[in-house]
Amino acid sequence: MMTQLQEKDLRYIWHPCAQMKDYEQFPPKVIVRGEGVWLYDEQGQRYLDAVSSWWVNLFGHANQRLSQVLAQQAQTLEHTIFANFTHLPAIEVAERLVRLTPQGLNKVFFADNGSAAIEVALKMSFQYHAQKNKTRKKRFLALTNAYHGETIGALSVGGVDLYNEVYTPLLLDTVRSQGPDCYRCPFQQQPSHCQAQCIEFVERDLQQHHEEITAVIIEPLIQAAAGMKMYPPIYLKKLRALCTTYDVHLIADEIAVGFGRTGSLFACEQADISPDFLCLSKGITGGYLPLSVVVTTNDVYEAFYDDYQTMKAFLHSHSYTGNTLACRIAQEVLTMFEDENVMDMVQEKGAMLRRQAETAFCDLPYVGEYRQIGLVGAIELVVDKTTKQPFPSEERIGYHIYKEALEKGLLIRPLGNILYFMPPYTITEEEMTFMVTTTKDTLVNFFAERELV
Amino acid sequence: MMTQLQEKDLRYIWHPCAQMKDYEQFPPKVIVRGEGVWLYDEQGQRYLDAVSSWWVNLFGHANQRLSQVLAQQAQTLEHTIFANFTHLPAIEVAERLVRLTPQGLNKVFFADNGSAAIEVALKMSFQYHAQKNKTRKKRFLALTNAYHGETIGALSVGGVDLYNEVYTPLLLDTVRSQGPDCYRCPFQQQPSHCQAQCIEFVERDLQQHHEEITAVIIEPLIQAAAGMKMYPPIYLKKLRALCTTYDVHLIADEIAVGFGRTGSLFACEQADISPDFLCLSKGITGGYLPLSVVVTTNDVYEAFYDDYQTMKAFLHSHSYTGNTLACRIAQEVLTMFEDENVMDMVQEKGAMLRRQAETAFCDLPYVGEYRQIGLVGAIELVVDKTTKQPFPSEERIGYHIYKEALEKGLLIRPLGNILYFMPPYTITEEEMTFMVTTTKDTLVNFFAERELV
Ligand SMILES: Cc1ncc(COP(=O)(O)O)c(C=O)c1O
Ligand SMILES: Cc1ncc(COP(=O)(O)O)c(C=O)c1O
Repeated sequence: MMTQLQEKDLRYIWHPCAQMKDYEQFPPKVIVRGEGVWLYDEQGQRYLDAVSSWWVNLFGHANQRLSQVLAQQAQTLEHTIFANFTHLPAIEVAERLVRLTPQGLNKVFFADNGSAAIEVALKMSFQYHAQKNKTRKKRFLALTNAYHGETIGALSVGGVDLYNEVYTPLLLDTVRSQGPDCYRCPFQQQPSHCQAQCIEFVERDLQQHHEEITAVIIEPLIQAAAGMKMYPPIYLKKLRALCTTYDVHLIADEIAVGFGRTGSLFACEQADISPDFLCLSKGITGGYLPLSVVVTTNDVYEAFYDDYQTMKAFLHSHSYTGNTLACRIAQEVLTMFEDENVMDMVQEKGAMLRRQAETAFCDLPYVGEYRQIGLVGAIELVVDKTTKQPFPSEERIGYHIYKEALEKGLLIRPLGNILYFMPPYTITEEEMTFMVTTTKDTLVNFFAERELV
Repeated sequence: MMTQLQEKDLRYIWHPCAQMKDYEQFPPKVIVRGEGVWLYDEQGQRYLDAVSSWWVNLFGHANQRLSQVLAQQAQTLEHTIFANFTHLPAIEVAERLVRLTPQGLNKVFFADNGSAAIEVALKMSFQYHAQKNKTRKKRFLALTNAYHGETIGALSVGGVDLYNEVYTPLLLDTVRSQGPDCYRCPFQQQPSHCQAQCIEFVERDLQQHHEEITAVIIEPLIQAAAGMKMYPPIYLKKLRALCTTYDVHLIADEIAVGFGRTGSLFACEQADISPDFLCLSKGITGGYLPLSVVVTTNDVYEAFYDDYQTMKAFLHSHSYTGNTLACRIAQEVLTMFEDENVMDMVQEKGAMLRRQAETAFCDLPYVGEYRQIGLVGAIELVVDKTTKQPFPSEERIGYHIYKEALEKGLLIRPLGNILYFMPPYTITEEEMTFMVTTTKDTLVNFFAERELV
């Protein structure tokens, strides 16, 4: 039985990342209100948003402080063209980002979604080398299982077949190197001790192709969309060194992991490295509004800085670049990080999650691994814990569990066979317990019923 | 002399579409407040926003009605994941768009900037044909002087060298057909009488390449970024027929011209055609927030509608797809179109602009043409009215005039040698007079001084 609004939704809307036929059986929840970690639908049923609405929300839904500054900003200035014009929220955001991001990142270029930030970094890196007469450098190197967005450039550096395969004829010829795969490590190492031997795959490709490669792009510490695949900082450290050796830029895509998710403000900090480009979005507005930035070095900036007639300028723009409302929210979010010990909160909630989740999941038979960095926890479901054999994707194990959890008031949209927790930082202990136990109950139930069939 | 904020801006921000070296001489205006057509800087100097902040603003800055609904929405629900979840503002926007857009456009796919909407349309069209086993169809046809955005896919269909050229090695192999060029018509026709003979260029290319072409993309009536190049509806009518004949999709990019700009709600209406994909952004939120949509047909939708296992779904998404705050503003903007006779206002202001501008500009020696559609008016500056010889781009005529006008309180950021007016629909007669006379004074002065040199 669908409600009128659900029927209307299906009549008019084509949802993202979805087979719409699924929606006929399982119509979309019509959310009318949010509060903290909870989303409320038209019938008053509530859902704990354990995925922070695709990893964007940091401080809860309808956050009073953020909503208030938004309302105030809208009364004064909602938006202004950002070429030859500027405004205080953008200046404040840029200043704070330069202060807070790894050393050497000094210039902030604004865009309005994650994919666009990736496209900006790719284009800047390419044009940088072109303007240094390194015109052979026109390929990018990216890892297997990478995800960087959906526009043609961003998709070209992605390595998740699910999103890419059908578009192959449209995509750039990216050098694809085998990335880390700690759960099924080809070198039988443990992340805690390993020396990132698997960097040899990238190393070999760089050795061979570096003259054609303008940049390496990577998701630091967590390959998120591929299923919260985690790897240790040493990999990043070695990669940074290789990029320097081979005169290739390093693009760090912290769109998913930036702003505290991994337990440090930026994931790169844990490897003590500075990339040449840092792409940020999602959490930058605490989950309120689309906004993205690329933070880069003076070296890059200066390669474009010249008399107009040399035509070296970077002419990329989006209509809403530097949107005042979104910047005002971002300014407040960054202020909260500085004023409110947000990182302590993430540490504390991270430890709490680890305690609860390890107890709940590690001994379950079909849980191959529970892994966690910061406030991102992931359960990898497998047919067999010893062989680590994955469930066939046609079975849609994750999807079925997701649907059942949803009926119990928990939103844990999975990635294939991986269930994950990435809640707002403001989640309470009680809410976390609900999240973990509901997941466990759903899992246990699901597999018990499955065995009966 | 720079203010502290200007210095800070230049220290931290890399502005879009700019040679940053220019900013040292001409620092960005720091806007602190907007009201109606006016932007106020930190010194209290105001600027009439004659370009609607890159063509996004419809109803004035800091519009009370829009700011109020935004504030209310932020208190209830700022955003929710849009996969398996939905909300009233998105449903309302989708329903209205289906009602208001040309017949046959029935499904609304959300994204968050203009370029992303283009990428969605390109990918959908390509995948549609792939799923119909027309796997040879993997190229797009676009016009000379087209502009569709800056991400790699969108840039690939663009035809303005200024933005594309340096990136050529990264771009898709687009079939580029000579588009209309009414001011310098190769067939010596007048737009008012012509039968769009110049469609023969596209026709020839379609004849030759249609088996490889999945879609033709076009900016209806006005090629905006190329310099507000205008052409008559008959061109669109013929193009639609050709696309149907050759089994090729038609993508109408109304990102710049949609929502009333051309005097009809959508430009396609003037040609009485329905495209297969209609891309919208900019004005959709009245200039408040980034949001974009692609509206498409049931035929396209159904080609992706199947059992999950067939893997026919369209998996594109952006984190902030269907952002609740942006949708709430769009909902109000569409309500204003329905409640407030906005189209009458555009008609009236358009007529007013035409009267004022034709009187002011047509007799000036270096004005090759004053052209207008709806509430878009453009002045093409030429060395010689008879030969129509353009000013060399190195002279940056438009840029210099822009800077002088700005000092007089008028923001008319030009496109090369083309100055244009694209003010908010709420501009008053008095404000329009200020806009036109300040432009005229600046022009007359500029050329008088130039002759003295
Ligand atoms: C016709 C047209 N298409 C696409 C775009 C790209 O939109 P955005 O700048 O929001 O990416 C623009 C922007 O100016 C445009 O004018
Ligand atoms: C690591 C990473 N990069 C890029 C993107 C793309 O950002 P957006 O969806 O805003 O285009 C995402 C989004 O999920 C992401 O996780």
